[in-house]
Amino acid sequence: MLMHTHEARLDALRKELKRQELDGFVVPISDEHVSEYVGAYAQRLAWLTGFGGSAGSAVVLADKAAMFVDGRYTVQVREQVDGNLFNYCSIPKETIGGWLAANAGEGARIGYDPWLHTRKWVDAVEKQLGKSGVTLVPAASNPIDAVWQDRPEPSDAVAVVHTQDHAGRSSAEKRAEIADALKAAGNDAAVVSALDSIAWLLNIRGSDVDHTPVALSYVIARDDGTADLFIAPEKVTPELAQHLGNAVTIRERDAFSEALSELSGKRVSVDPDYGVAAIAQLLEEAGAQVSFNRCPTILPKAIKNPVEQQGHRDAQARDGAAVTRFLRWLSREGPSGMVDELTAAAKLRAFREEHGDLRDLSFDTISAAGPHAALPHYRVDEDSNIPIPPSSIYLVDSGGQYPDGTTDITRTVWIGPGEPTKEMTDRNTRVLKGHIAIAQAVFPSGTAGSQLDSFARQFLWSAGVDFAHGTGHGVGSFLSVHEGPQRISKAAGGQAGTDQELMAGMILSNEPGYYKQGHFGIRIENLILTEKREIEGAEGDYFGFETLTFVPLDRRLIDRDLLTPTEIAWVDSYHAEVRKLLAPRLSGEDLAWLEQECAPL
Amino acid sequence: MLMHTHEARLDALRKELKRQELDGFVVPISDEHVSEYVGAYAQRLAWLTGFGGSAGSAVVLADKAAMFVDGRYTVQVREQVDGNLFNYCSIPKETIGGWLAANAGEGARIGYDPWLHTRKWVDAVEKQLGKSGVTLVPAASNPIDAVWQDRPEPSDAVAVVHTQDHAGRSSAEKRAEIADALKAAGNDAAVVSALDSIAWLLNIRGSDVDHTPVALSYVIARDDGTADLFIAPEKVTPELAQHLGNAVTIRERDAFSEALSELSGKRVSVDPDYGVAAIAQLLEEAGAQVSFNRCPTILPKAIKNPVEQQGHRDAQARDGAAVTRFLRWLSREGPSGMVDELTAAAKLRAFREEHGDLRDLSFDTISAAGPHAALPHYRVDEDSNIPIPPSSIYLVDSGGQYPDGTTDITRTVWIGPGEPTKEMTDRNTRVLKGHIAIAQAVFPSGTAGSQLDSFARQFLWSAGVDFAHGTGHGVGSFLSVHEGPQRISKAAGGQAGTDQELMAGMILSNEPGYYKQGHFGIRIENLILTEKREIEGAEGDYFGFETLTFVPLDRRLIDRDLLTPTEIAWVDSYHAEVRKLLAPRLSGEDLAWLEQECAPL
Repeated sequence: MLMHTHEARLDALRKELKRQELDGFVVPISDEHVSEYVGAYAQRLAWLTGFGGSAGSAVVLADKAAMFVDGRYTVQVREQVDGNLFNYCSIPKETIGGWLAANAGEGARIGYDPWLHTRKWVDAVEKQLGKSGVTLVPAASNPIDAVWQDRPEPSDAVAVVHTQDHAGRSSAEKRAEIADALKAAGNDAAVVSALDSIAWLLNIRGSDVDHTPVALSYVIARDDGTADLFIAPEKVTPELAQHLGNAVTIRERDAFSEALSELSGKRVSVDPDYGVAAIAQLLEEAGAQVSFNRCPTILPKAIKNPVEQQGHRDAQARDGAAVTRFLRWLSREGPSGMVDELTAAAKLRAFREEHGDLRDLSFDTISAAGPHAALPHYRVDEDSNIPIPPSSIYLVDSGGQYPDGTTDITRTVWIGPGEPTKEMTDRNTRVLKGHIAIAQAVFPSGTAGSQLDSFARQFLWSAGVDFAHGTGHGVGSFLSVHEGPQRISKAAGGQAGTDQELMAGMILSNEPGYYKQGHFGIRIENLILTEKREIEGAEGDYFGFETLTFVPLDRRLIDRDLLTPTEIAWVDSYHAEVRKLLAPRLSGEDLAWLEQECAPL
Repeated sequence: MLMHTHEARLDALRKELKRQELDGFVVPISDEHVSEYVGAYAQRLAWLTGFGGSAGSAVVLADKAAMFVDGRYTVQVREQVDGNLFNYCSIPKETIGGWLAANAGEGARIGYDPWLHTRKWVDAVEKQLGKSGVTLVPAASNPIDAVWQDRPEPSDAVAVVHTQDHAGRSSAEKRAEIADALKAAGNDAAVVSALDSIAWLLNIRGSDVDHTPVALSYVIARDDGTADLFIAPEKVTPELAQHLGNAVTIRERDAFSEALSELSGKRVSVDPDYGVAAIAQLLEEAGAQVSFNRCPTILPKAIKNPVEQQGHRDAQARDGAAVTRFLRWLSREGPSGMVDELTAAAKLRAFREEHGDLRDLSFDTISAAGPHAALPHYRVDEDSNIPIPPSSIYLVDSGGQYPDGTTDITRTVWIGPGEPTKEMTDRNTRVLKGHIAIAQAVFPSGTAGSQLDSFARQFLWSAGVDFAHGTGHGVGSFLSVHEGPQRISKAAGGQAGTDQELMAGMILSNEPGYYKQGHFGIRIENLILTEKREIEGAEGDYFGFETLTFVPLDRRLIDRDLLTPTEIAWVDSYHAEVRKLLAPRLSGEDLAWLEQECAPL
């Protein structure tokens, strides 16, 4: 008998906790790989609570339960999660440990699934628990799995080869580099558990997770260049086995725990942000020495090689043509008031799909009309969908997964008829000036993303406004659209990646914005590639950015008088490049529209 | 019998170490207050080694010794310290703990004077020592003091009242604010040991330390607004006693240790950066609970009240007139080649002294000709002194202590005859553009100094160059010329103050520069006051800077073509203000020169 209500599910979980002699349990949105997008089989929080957001946790005690979400989801959680079953708690003001300390009672043993949390998380919650007498206990098995009767199986999609013409470097070469890094750090092996790191290291891709082409698996990489890949046998085609070769041993995914125990006496690198607590626990129980280091794949993965760089350029041109056709379609259809957000997103997808190379979207399209655009993380669905109002601003943030690159672009456009307000063009122009300041930044080696962030905000600041998100995130090569370790953002709170030196070959987004609550939202996003600059007389190494994304900017939202001659030259030169790149890919009215939009300001 | 050679001194120290059963000892440049400038009585490192720099440490073992200095002093240490007695070690590449771990031998007990180091320092060195088996031991008394026979006594200068017309707030009001902060943090008392914090809290000043008008003393401030001041009786005049009033108990400086022991059972705040290890040790031995927090005086001291702000403006005008007269004198005398660095510094001091309000210089004047200007921390002395070459760049960084404010200004000027090179004007103009970018920055509440730092560097970066020091430091009110907690600088390495939110009333320097090794150096420094800005339509609180320093910039070093119209307007408006402020204070040829230098670009 299936349990259809969340009340029944919560009851069943509480019975199971009693059976496991636990006084409570923490339910995150996570999988064994600390993935950003998790498969259906791991959607335990949604099953238990009905919550559909991408970040949050529930904590269940025998007599009460709480739901923890951040500012993005304070409204949504109230719509989706029953307030009679769960108290709403707001992160970071309230913490899981703090709530447990206040509510669980001294001596309470609170379970967590050590395959879904990092040790860092465990340490942080234990610190929050303080001297409350409440303890965290790793559960032997996940109690939700015991009561979730129709839980989906993990995806059984096959893994495929990411060919050399897209990867640019062989897996053997990458493994040799990792082996050198392990030796240099005095480590014998590294547990590679982040799915995109595995995909990069072995030059494989998969279809197990939405929007990110990865295959569920683990890797143990050794300091001799060999590796063990733990993966469900049904995912392994003969072609894949041949690609992996003799130096990579293919083993059952279930053999991973046992393999960790075989590392007794070894010094093993585990990433504190991507390796779940169970990995360190099993290694330590086996007598291995755990060394918590950034996974040695992270930095080389972020530094795109020349083949990957060219792949991005090619993918961007293809993607840019599709987005441009969409914008031209919207400029014609939008003013009627008959286009709604879902239709627009579907139309954009269709334009992208016309090119056979699209493998997936790189994330759920943000198709945001009017006041929806003022919510930077808005996701349109059947419930939220509204028609795009005539005479309004529309924001579309979207991206595609192509075998040669991952794209991510935001354009903000004026939907006629009529003209945007002076405030709208003022704000859009200030966002554009910030975008240009990042695009034109030149900086010495050793410069971190946080040192460039204010360049993007300065023109908004001088008008007394700002935007409440980062300026730029890393992007993968036919991998995750959000990829570390680099990031352009305020460093406040020790935000991950803001202190990472920007290095040639790193790709980032450049996406300042402005959001007027209840009215409109603006964001201009291109991807940029960090490149070395040759400057006459330079003292040391200097870097700058090559813009990778080419789609017209809406000139109706630009106030030319607010731009400096240098900025006008940047826009004109950008549009000239857009025209040159996209004209061969467009025809008829699309081409005519492109020419018109790319004329000098 | 006095020991005249450093060898003899080192021998004597080693005998004393043996007597104290120590295997080694660490000798820093520091006093009991972690002061930037330390009195002659605390110049133990100079006595032992001959080193005359402002930062460094020696470590002495029975059979070897080492001298640790940073990049500023690698040349100087070799000139001043005997390489046969001390190995030269370079900070931060080499560390005291690392050197001890490698050289002291397992089981070695290394002494340190707990009155000269913070616990933070002890913890850091112990971490460096790792598992070497070497331990740090607080010495019962400083072994150098046992063998330094003619050690000067601490200064016996009297302390004086800092009057309300300069302080702007009474000591009682400040102590009430500190009491509230203590109560809010759950502390019973705070040990205030930084000399400028004591001076600020009690509205007193002294003459015990060069360049900073403070009096050697300690304070214990309580959560009821009362305080104990520990100070040598000869420093206390009847006027001072009356000023301090009944709520401040005056006690002997030597009674401080005993007073700490009286805090048994109390929760006592100690600043981790300014409270020496002995303080925490004595408190803990007495059964007090030590809470390591930023001293509650630090933030209110940094936020200048309106009276202090006006005092700074007045002091700057007075100081600006003196500097302007000096620059005019130099413009006439410099081209002869007959002026040397020391003469120039003396002349500048004389112009400052003509106004009776000068109490001291706020630091040793940096009077740097030609290649000397390329050393940002150059200090001129009899040995280094050179004539200022005709047709060269001269840099002067100097400041005065006035009862109403502390000044700090750098000007870089062309010494004729002839014209500066294109490179010189290019670099100076880029430094100026960065200076203007900071001066014109607008930023939201919560913005830290590190978020503005790149504004000062961007125009140098685009030419492939940078400067290797911070952009701005805090400045006191007739107190230390280097005052925390705020700082505009790269955040790399967690540099102190770079993450401090800039708040209205904070004063900073704005001093980008450029240094061409072996050739010339450029720095343009004004002081700036953080002020709230009213911006129409602003979302939240926004801030900007009021420039406080008014002295002409050398127009011969400015390439007008590199400036934007906004930047030209800034320079012209700045010069118009300089003229307006200084004209009433100058006459004759000085006034004529001012008018000429302040004409629009």
